[in-house]
Amino acid sequence: MQADTKDDTMNGRKMTEIRQDVLSRVRPTEDEKIKLETVRKGIIDDIVRIARQQGQHDVIPLSVGSAERNTWLHGNHDIDLFISYPEDTSFNEFHKKSKRLLAEMAKTGDSWEDRHSAHPYIHIRKEGFEVDLVPCFRVKSGAEIKSAVDRTPFHCAYIKENIRGLEEDVLLLKQFMKGTGVYGSEVKTGGFSGYLTEILTIYYGGFEKVLEAASEWKRGTVIDIAAHQTVEHEDPLVVVDPTDPKRNVAAALSLTKFSLFIDRARAFLKNQSAEYFTKKEYPPLTAEEYRRLAEKRGTKLIGVSFKTPPKAEDTLYPQLFRLEKSLEEILTRNEFTVINAFSWSEEHQKSVVFVEVLNDELPPLQKRVGPPVWNINNAAAFRKKYKGDPNTFSFAIENDRYVAEILRKYKSAAVLIEDLLFKEAALGRHVQDALKEGYEIFRNEDIEKIGSEAFWKFMNEKLTGQIDP
Amino acid sequence: MQADTKDDTMNGRKMTEIRQDVLSRVRPTEDEKIKLETVRKGIIDDIVRIARQQGQHDVIPLSVGSAERNTWLHGNHDIDLFISYPEDTSFNEFHKKSKRLLAEMAKTGDSWEDRHSAHPYIHIRKEGFEVDLVPCFRVKSGAEIKSAVDRTPFHCAYIKENIRGLEEDVLLLKQFMKGTGVYGSEVKTGGFSGYLTEILTIYYGGFEKVLEAASEWKRGTVIDIAAHQTVEHEDPLVVVDPTDPKRNVAAALSLTKFSLFIDRARAFLKNQSAEYFTKKEYPPLTAEEYRRLAEKRGTKLIGVSFKTPPKAEDTLYPQLFRLEKSLEEILTRNEFTVINAFSWSEEHQKSVVFVEVLNDELPPLQKRVGPPVWNINNAAAFRKKYKGDPNTFSFAIENDRYVAEILRKYKSAAVLIEDLLFKEAALGRHVQDALKEGYEIFRNEDIEKIGSEAFWKFMNEKLTGQIDP
Repeated sequence: MQADTKDDTMNGRKMTEIRQDVLSRVRPTEDEKIKLETVRKGIIDDIVRIARQQGQHDVIPLSVGSAERNTWLHGNHDIDLFISYPEDTSFNEFHKKSKRLLAEMAKTGDSWEDRHSAHPYIHIRKEGFEVDLVPCFRVKSGAEIKSAVDRTPFHCAYIKENIRGLEEDVLLLKQFMKGTGVYGSEVKTGGFSGYLTEILTIYYGGFEKVLEAASEWKRGTVIDIAAHQTVEHEDPLVVVDPTDPKRNVAAALSLTKFSLFIDRARAFLKNQSAEYFTKKEYPPLTAEEYRRLAEKRGTKLIGVSFKTPPKAEDTLYPQLFRLEKSLEEILTRNEFTVINAFSWSEEHQKSVVFVEVLNDELPPLQKRVGPPVWNINNAAAFRKKYKGDPNTFSFAIENDRYVAEILRKYKSAAVLIEDLLFKEAALGRHVQDALKEGYEIFRNEDIEKIGSEAFWKFMNEKLTGQIDP
Repeated sequence: MQADTKDDTMNGRKMTEIRQDVLSRVRPTEDEKIKLETVRKGIIDDIVRIARQQGQHDVIPLSVGSAERNTWLHGNHDIDLFISYPEDTSFNEFHKKSKRLLAEMAKTGDSWEDRHSAHPYIHIRKEGFEVDLVPCFRVKSGAEIKSAVDRTPFHCAYIKENIRGLEEDVLLLKQFMKGTGVYGSEVKTGGFSGYLTEILTIYYGGFEKVLEAASEWKRGTVIDIAAHQTVEHEDPLVVVDPTDPKRNVAAALSLTKFSLFIDRARAFLKNQSAEYFTKKEYPPLTAEEYRRLAEKRGTKLIGVSFKTPPKAEDTLYPQLFRLEKSLEEILTRNEFTVINAFSWSEEHQKSVVFVEVLNDELPPLQKRVGPPVWNINNAAAFRKKYKGDPNTFSFAIENDRYVAEILRKYKSAAVLIEDLLFKEAALGRHVQDALKEGYEIFRNEDIEKIGSEAFWKFMNEKLTGQIDP
C-alpha cells in the first residue's frame, strides 16, 4: 500500500505542478479582465442607449459566452452579446427592429461585418475585441425556443449557476483540448464546444475526473446531467442539454475527435506532462522535403483546386467534406484504392479537395462479377451486356456467377475525376458554383504550386504527424 | 395458340434432327458392341478361371459401369469389372486373396498398373480397352458397405433396373455435358458423374426434361428419387443416392460446373443447336499472341512452377486448388488485387499454380487501420507497435480507430510469394515435397518458357474463352 500512496502523492504533486504551470499561462490577467469588462460594459451601454433612441424600450442586452461565466482563456478576445426581445414579438417586427438597432451598433465598432444568414447577426471589432451581436427572443425555457440562438442565454445561466469553484478546471480542460486538437465545435474541427467542456467539468467534478471518465468512454456514451433525456441520439457522445431534454450538446463532435480525446486522456493519465496543453507546431514542408516524402510514400496525390467560395467556414466545410467522400466513393467504385481524403481551404484564396490513392493508374483489364445465375433476369441482363462484346476479353462462370473480363473505362484516376466531377460527384451549391468558374486538377508535383506557408504546415502534419506527445 | 403449336412443332422437328445427328455420332456401333462384349467376357472368364486355380471358390465377378448398362458412348473403351468376395470375409483375408488374384490377372493384360491406395485395385490394358479390376465385398445393400467401392454394384443394378428406354437420352445428356465442359466427376473437372447423369435422366424422364428442369435449378436443389433422404448436405446440388439415403451423388459437383450447366441448359433450350454437343477447341496461343494479349490486359501473371508429383490427378488437384486459394489469400491480405487463380499440370512434366493480379507492385506506403480505441487492450497493442516506429510515416486517429501509415513489407507480389511460400501458404504433402525439390517463380514473359501445346490451348481458353455457343 505504501508504494501506491507514494505514487499517488507523486502523481498528486506532479498534477499540482502542471495545474499551476498551465493556469499561470491560461488564466486571464487582472488587466485583461478589467479591459474586457470595460469594453463589454461600453457595448452594453451602447445597446441600451441606441435602443432607447430608437424607441425600443423592451430590448434587454444579455451577456453570454465564456467571458460572462469566468471560463475564458488568457488571450481570448471574444465577447458575445445577445440583444433580447420579448417572446411575443412577431418575427417580422423582430427582424425590422433588430436590423435597425444592429445598423446603428455597427457604427460603434472599429470595423464590422454582416454575418446574418436566416437570422440577423453582426460581428464588430472594437478595441481589439471580436464581438458578436446577436438578437434573440426572451423565451421561457431552452426547450421552447423561437429561434436557434434563444437557447444560448439559458446555457449561460445554467453554467453560471453550477460552475462555481470549477472555473479553473474548465480552463485546464479547454487548454488540454486545445493542445490536443479537439477543441472547437465548428464544422472544420468537429471538436468540443465551450459549453460541452463546462458541462463535462460540472458532471464529473473537475479536470482530472473528466479525463479519467473519458479514458473509459465508448461510442454511444450518454451523459444526462439533468436526468431528463427524451430523445435518442446516434452521435458518438450524447450529452443531454440540461436546458433542453431533446438536444445533444455533443452533436457536433465528430467520431474522430471523440476518439482522439479518449486516447489523449489515457495518454495524459499514464504520463502526466504539461506538453499536452500546447498544440504541436509543424514547420512548413519545403518543396524539396515534400518531393522526397512523396517519393518515399510512393502513393499518388490528386487535388481538385478552386477559388474558395466567399462563405463562412461552417457553410463551406460540409461541402468540402461531401466532395471528399464523394470522390472517395467514385474512385473506390472504379477500383482505385483511396488511402486518404482531406481538404485545404483559405479565405479569398484556393480551396483544394485532396484524395491520395495507392496507384493512380490501373491496367486496362477489369474483372466484372455478375449476379448468381439463378437470379434469372439480372443474370440474363449481365450476360447480354458483356458476352460477345468487342471490349470483352473473356466471359465465363465462376462459382455461381457470370464473370466478364472487360476493357476498363477509367485507367487514370485524374481522368476519372475530370470526367465525373460534374456528372457523379456530390457537389454542394457553393462548391459547384466555384468549380463552374474554373478549377484545376493537381497531380503529385503540381501541388507545389500552392504557395501558402499555412498549407505546407498542414501538409507536414497530415503526412508526418503522430498523435503526440 | 396456333403460334405456340407451330413453334413447338418446329422445336420438336429441330430437336428430332439434333437427336438423330448427335446419336449417329455417339451411339456405339454394332462392331464396337461385339468387340467390347468379347473382351469383357474374356476377362470375366479369366477371373473365374484364375480364382478357381487359386482355390478361391467364393469369388464372383461383377460387371459394372456404363458398358454394362448400355449407356456408354461411341469410342469409349472403359470396362469396369468388380471381383466380389462374401461379406463375412475378413479384411486380412480379403487383401491376401484379392492381391493374389490380381497378381495373376495383371499378367493377362497387354500392360498393367497397380493403382491401389488403401484399397487393392489394378488397371490393365487389353486389346485397346482400359480395364479396371476392383475387388469388393458382396454386401446386402448400398447403405451397409464394408469398403467404399461396394456401393458401385448397387448403383449399376439400380440403373439397369430403371433405365430401360432412356439409354439414348443418357447418351445425349452425357454428350451435351461433354460438349459444354461439365462432364466428369474427377476433382480437376468437378463435373457430373455418369451415375449422376443417369439418375437425372431417370428422375426427369429424358434428356430435354433434364435441361428444362436444370434451367430453373437454384443452389441447394434437392432430388430424392427414392424419397428416403436422411442427411442434409451443403452441396450446390443434392441428389440423394437411391441405394444409400445418406449419400449425395452430386457431392463432387462444383458450384461453377453446376452453374455452368444451368446456363448451358437455358442457352440450348432458347436456341437449339448441335454445336452444344462438341467441345469448343481453342488453338494454342503463339508466343507473339500471348505477348500482345498480356499487354492488352495489362495485368500481371505470376506462376509457381514445380515438377508434377507422381500422383493421381484426384490426389494432386485438391493440393493445387489449395495452393491457388492460399496464394490468393496471402496476396489479398497484403493488398494485391487478385483477379484470377488457376493451375496447370502435366504428368511427368511441370505443374504451375498461377495467380493474376491487377498490379504486381505496390507503393512503399501502407495504411494500417487498428481496432477501435475503446477496444482498450488491442488498441494499446496497435499503438505500441506502430507509434514512433522508425518505419511509421504518420500515426493518427480516424473515426474510432488508430491508423498508421507504415513502410509496406511486400512491394512486389513475386517477392512476397517467394518469401512466404513455405512460411504461410497451405501446402499439401505432395506439392510441398515437389516444391522442396525445386521450383521457379514465373513472372509475365517467363511463362513463355512453358513449351507444351496443351498449355497454350488451355491459356487461350483461360484468357479469351467465352461460354459458347
